[in-house]
Amino acid sequence: MLVEQLLRPYGANKFEIVEKKGLGHPDTLCDGISDAISRSLSKYYIDHFGHILHHNVDKVLLIGGRSRPEFGGGEILRPLAIVIGGRATDDADGTKIPVNDIAKEATEKFLKKTVNNLNGHFTVEPRIGMGSTELRSLVGRVVANDTSIGLGYAPLSHLEENVTKIEPLMRSVKGVGEDVKIMGIRKGNGIQLTMASAIVSKYIEDMEQYNDTKRKVEEKVLGYVTPGWADVSAIVNNADKGEDIYLTVTGTSAEMGDDGETGRGNRPNGLITPGRPMTMEATAGKNPVSHVGKLYNIAANRMAAEIAAFDGVEEAYVYLVSRIGAPLEEPQIKSASIYGKANEKKIEAVIDYWLEHIPDITEDFVKGRL
Amino acid sequence: MLVEQLLRPYGANKFEIVEKKGLGHPDTLCDGISDAISRSLSKYYIDHFGHILHHNVDKVLLIGGRSRPEFGGGEILRPLAIVIGGRATDDADGTKIPVNDIAKEATEKFLKKTVNNLNGHFTVEPRIGMGSTELRSLVGRVVANDTSIGLGYAPLSHLEENVTKIEPLMRSVKGVGEDVKIMGIRKGNGIQLTMASAIVSKYIEDMEQYNDTKRKVEEKVLGYVTPGWADVSAIVNNADKGEDIYLTVTGTSAEMGDDGETGRGNRPNGLITPGRPMTMEATAGKNPVSHVGKLYNIAANRMAAEIAAFDGVEEAYVYLVSRIGAPLEEPQIKSASIYGKANEKKIEAVIDYWLEHIPDITEDFVKGRL
Amino acid sequence: MLVEQLLRPYGANKFEIVEKKGLGHPDTLCDGISDAISRSLSKYYIDHFGHILHHNVDKVLLIGGRSRPEFGGGEILRPLAIVIGGRATDDADGTKIPVNDIAKEATEKFLKKTVNNLNGHFTVEPRIGMGSTELRSLVGRVVANDTSIGLGYAPLSHLEENVTKIEPLMRSVKGVGEDVKIMGIRKGNGIQLTMASAIVSKYIEDMEQYNDTKRKVEEKVLGYVTPGWADVSAIVNNADKGEDIYLTVTGTSAEMGDDGETGRGNRPNGLITPGRPMTMEATAGKNPVSHVGKLYNIAANRMAAEIAAFDGVEEAYVYLVSRIGAPLEEPQIKSASIYGKANEKKIEAVIDYWLEHIPDITEDFVKGRL
Amino acid sequence: MLVEQLLRPYGANKFEIVEKKGLGHPDTLCDGISDAISRSLSKYYIDHFGHILHHNVDKVLLIGGRSRPEFGGGEILRPLAIVIGGRATDDADGTKIPVNDIAKEATEKFLKKTVNNLNGHFTVEPRIGMGSTELRSLVGRVVANDTSIGLGYAPLSHLEENVTKIEPLMRSVKGVGEDVKIMGIRKGNGIQLTMASAIVSKYIEDMEQYNDTKRKVEEKVLGYVTPGWADVSAIVNNADKGEDIYLTVTGTSAEMGDDGETGRGNRPNGLITPGRPMTMEATAGKNPVSHVGKLYNIAANRMAAEIAAFDGVEEAYVYLVSRIGAPLEEPQIKSASIYGKANEKKIEAVIDYWLEHIPDITEDFVKGRL
Repeated sequence: MLVEQLLRPYGANKFEIVEKKGLGHPDTLCDGISDAISRSLSKYYIDHFGHILHHNVDKVLLIGGRSRPEFGGGEILRPLAIVIGGRATDDADGTKIPVNDIAKEATEKFLKKTVNNLNGHFTVEPRIGMGSTELRSLVGRVVANDTSIGLGYAPLSHLEENVTKIEPLMRSVKGVGEDVKIMGIRKGNGIQLTMASAIVSKYIEDMEQYNDTKRKVEEKVLGYVTPGWADVSAIVNNADKGEDIYLTVTGTSAEMGDDGETGRGNRPNGLITPGRPMTMEATAGKNPVSHVGKLYNIAANRMAAEIAAFDGVEEAYVYLVSRIGAPLEEPQIKSASIYGKANEKKIEAVIDYWLEHIPDITEDFVKGRL
Repeated sequence: MLVEQLLRPYGANKFEIVEKKGLGHPDTLCDGISDAISRSLSKYYIDHFGHILHHNVDKVLLIGGRSRPEFGGGEILRPLAIVIGGRATDDADGTKIPVNDIAKEATEKFLKKTVNNLNGHFTVEPRIGMGSTELRSLVGRVVANDTSIGLGYAPLSHLEENVTKIEPLMRSVKGVGEDVKIMGIRKGNGIQLTMASAIVSKYIEDMEQYNDTKRKVEEKVLGYVTPGWADVSAIVNNADKGEDIYLTVTGTSAEMGDDGETGRGNRPNGLITPGRPMTMEATAGKNPVSHVGKLYNIAANRMAAEIAAFDGVEEAYVYLVSRIGAPLEEPQIKSASIYGKANEKKIEAVIDYWLEHIPDITEDFVKGRL
Repeated sequence: MLVEQLLRPYGANKFEIVEKKGLGHPDTLCDGISDAISRSLSKYYIDHFGHILHHNVDKVLLIGGRSRPEFGGGEILRPLAIVIGGRATDDADGTKIPVNDIAKEATEKFLKKTVNNLNGHFTVEPRIGMGSTELRSLVGRVVANDTSIGLGYAPLSHLEENVTKIEPLMRSVKGVGEDVKIMGIRKGNGIQLTMASAIVSKYIEDMEQYNDTKRKVEEKVLGYVTPGWADVSAIVNNADKGEDIYLTVTGTSAEMGDDGETGRGNRPNGLITPGRPMTMEATAGKNPVSHVGKLYNIAANRMAAEIAAFDGVEEAYVYLVSRIGAPLEEPQIKSASIYGKANEKKIEAVIDYWLEHIPDITEDFVKGRL
Repeated sequence: MLVEQLLRPYGANKFEIVEKKGLGHPDTLCDGISDAISRSLSKYYIDHFGHILHHNVDKVLLIGGRSRPEFGGGEILRPLAIVIGGRATDDADGTKIPVNDIAKEATEKFLKKTVNNLNGHFTVEPRIGMGSTELRSLVGRVVANDTSIGLGYAPLSHLEENVTKIEPLMRSVKGVGEDVKIMGIRKGNGIQLTMASAIVSKYIEDMEQYNDTKRKVEEKVLGYVTPGWADVSAIVNNADKGEDIYLTVTGTSAEMGDDGETGRGNRPNGLITPGRPMTMEATAGKNPVSHVGKLYNIAANRMAAEIAAFDGVEEAYVYLVSRIGAPLEEPQIKSASIYGKANEKKIEAVIDYWLEHIPDITEDFVKGRL
């Protein structure tokens, strides 16, 4: 156990950059599909075999469609195609498991629930393979399946909190689709919010209403964040030029050629924070029993949150690195960076507690509580 | 222009984590394919139209195959499938461009050149779409096509340098395939190197020779790094257990179900460094003319290298954020973090120089000099 | 050369059955796509290499889409998917040939030209492979590439002529799509015409207009055929029941799940005639230089037509069977069945003439004159 | 009911042509897969819902692979791809049916059982869609789902019988694969048998053994047929030239680019007989409850067999044409052609009997007794 003392908290930096891809962004959709499939598979495995069998569906590719949006309507010319890579156990003690159909149904349900105006304009191509035999069963051997990094921090900075809240706020404006994106920049005590919103054509009659909708988003965002900052600018769809605007039939840019992939968007805390420690691991779609790339990242965020709640601690980062083949509770590195006064024993206790309670994370995931 | 003074250099941290996915790792292969296609398209566009037309092929999905490796031989049961998403201009002034065939050929050449024992055991499915009309031509308007983050730092830490060099070293041992992976951890002045090496079955007669090969890799790596550290451990294929070893027909785990995606592996400097500032942008496959997600990241690394070379500067980080629709040389944020003594004017001069010389980066990319 | 004397002409049979799948029927579309690709490839090969190289694209699968037709409009929910199997030379003396792009473009042009209201609602998946090396070049060796049967007859019966003419007649009624189908039955001197017509929803306001359109088709058909028969019945879309009618957005049933395949529809003379000699060969998509399955069927129809034009010959059938590896002009069987008085020498002269003039058929095909 | 008197039996013709594609021919494999899927679906529907639900999987496309056969071994470079089109009910009263997984499993089992040396070298892509709602349930309404033709005849000619028996005979020679093909030609009282046999490389050491194997096939076939004919010639793999021989790794030409499609090969009686009445209907894969295109063809063959067994009848052909929307037992045409003395009442009685016993055919199909 290593504990590093930080010399300056993150919020004291002169500048800060935070990005968030919204619920309907193609990359976020791929993450959502990966997790929906993993959750459905896990439930099926538990129902039929008593425990979760090996799977890893963290490789979803969304191939964008083609659309012809127009004020008051428009149409989809070519639907989105969802190609599902990855692996899953499809045969347990000779019993066949309809892996591809489970994946297809989970994808369909997820997209129906998540993108209001998508209306079935997508195809699903499950191409899930089978892993090597020795990986297929997880019974009684919860050891790390890879050498992976887990990482978390707490608390969110003021800007990070704002960006987190702005995302659903933008989507609550009538006519705004699920595909929004926010780039938040802080310079000193002022912030710039550059936002993109896919506007849904059927709710918008003409250019005037389109511009009204953008203005409403800006006003709502400004109304929400203004009190906290010395200076705020907020702008929506800055690339609009003449007729060339961000109008969509479905509310996601995936309808017109924007592709997505699992693991390319927000990190496990829902943000992209280039100035903070970040993991490259895709947590979405990895199985919640043995896949340290998923479990350590979720765990590290919980650990950091508890440590940051200690009296005297202002900021906490937790780093874990697994040892392939070793039990999950025995990482090859566990360390923390702290701004503030820290009792090392207490920090280690928190980390060890969560390492031993990883099965709780598994259960929370399967029950959809994450 | 904002310059931040750092209070401690990276190397003074108590611990450090660096990961590198080798040349034949499924994610690295996808990056390589994306860039090979982008380079081929760029050349074709230049040859036929005088300038590079819009394209973005940063979405490649590699679906792993199935194999039956055995000492001295083995066979591929199902080849790898390469699904190529993304967009590219396929019609310029009424002239059709064979986009999918260019992509297919570039992929085939790249894989042939990169994975020695793959022997054509793969299929290519180009599914490249066309972007919305207004994006197709780039003539005379090199403005940012998105709000993206670029980021670079210099110099590499001692561990980062070691990990960078170890990768080709491992592959130089006879019998080792292109798919290697290194996780490097530093605690104080000691390091642990956890390595994975896909061993190529046809070069290996039996278990003894397999173990010999692993030992040779460890020895070669130890021989190389030992002088610099107080304490070094190096281990290869730690998950091997009995008959269950990392033996492959082709030298890449993609042959047996390990999938890959563009943008999921190494960052633009060839490493994954969770404790350092990192970008989530996939640079591979993005067009080298207007795609800031590619250009700013390459530029920021060059800027950081020049700044770190100043007298009195020990470490430099550069951050850029583009403004969608604005010229590339006018980012909405340009800032640097410095450990050492820095003349702000000189730092800004370096950054501005490279912002104005982005076309040089484009050319270097097309000519394969990056 | 064998000549058989028939004892009764076809038209003297008590009954007769003839089927014709119209221009926009899924199977006919697949035939059309196969031939469009073969024609485009042939032109490309001639332009670039001076002669036609080996190809065979007689395996096209059309996977039907999903639609929601409604009076006055409706929409396509999932487009048709065209999967193109087969083989073609893609490398000649080291020069690469963009086979898949040629196939894609030919398919797109064909569908655009053929189905008026399809509006791009389809995807194309070219999956053309390469044949074994020795087949790739056809230079100087026009020998049969298989043991295949060619077969033709003349003249068409009265019913067959009627059915041939009815197909475009049906499609000339406003609101009728390209996907029509005719089953013609003759019992003695009376005929029953059972017809199906995909009605295009955007031209039809309500059920009344739908029924009007069906009536117009029936009237037009009856007006055309009535003079020739003692008794005629004609009915369109007999399966309509209440709201359950044959309404489509695009004018082809392929929009809602009806699949098609090359070689499953009309025979080379445009008809399905179960009581007449018929070949199972798909002529569509086969290369027009060495593929006897295509050439012998076209040739046999021409031979039969010329023989049937002899004085004293009322009906002629020609049968050819190739000998694999032998020159095209040396079939292992050439025979004819004749009703009427026939001079065997003259019959053989006609057959031999066409066997020696097969290159004319090749040229007619490439120039689109068939 | 129409009965036509034939003036000459088929066997009295001067010549005759019969073709048979063997068990492992790509087209026959597609037919087999279609029927295997239909049988599996039917069983699943019966087990779970008490009766067979709507499906039609008569559109299978086999895309050939790529191989490198060599004496004593060789390898598969790219596996066969099986694309499964068609439609099936996947939702009954809210219960989901794993249609694609059933199709995949049925395909895998069928290929494993049918092609001995295929060893899993294939991929399966189920792309089965759902039909329009009104077609999904078949409960209580066994009416014709299309206007289709059914056709059968009996008995087989002497040549037809020979060709039928030769197919398994060829495959019984060691080293011969499942993909065989026979073209049988009769001229007067002599026959020519042109045969193709895919030879399996692992059983064959060199060119001598290859030629031995061909000779054995020829001898076995000649030994079997010789007594019945005045003159017989039999030749295997006539296209062999030097090194260019018909050697395969798996025993089917599908391994090296030969594609296949359902419905393109043998007719319901297992033969292609261009000089006889033939149907173009694919019977394979069509549902065995309402799909007249399947049922009428099977029924017509049974009817013809019973009629041909009457005293005084030498040859019988039965023709049926369904009326879409009408009960299966009420075709719009039922007729027979007879050589010999026929009691029309008895003929009609046989036809009516089988029209009323179509459910027996359904059951025989599901139980695999056809």
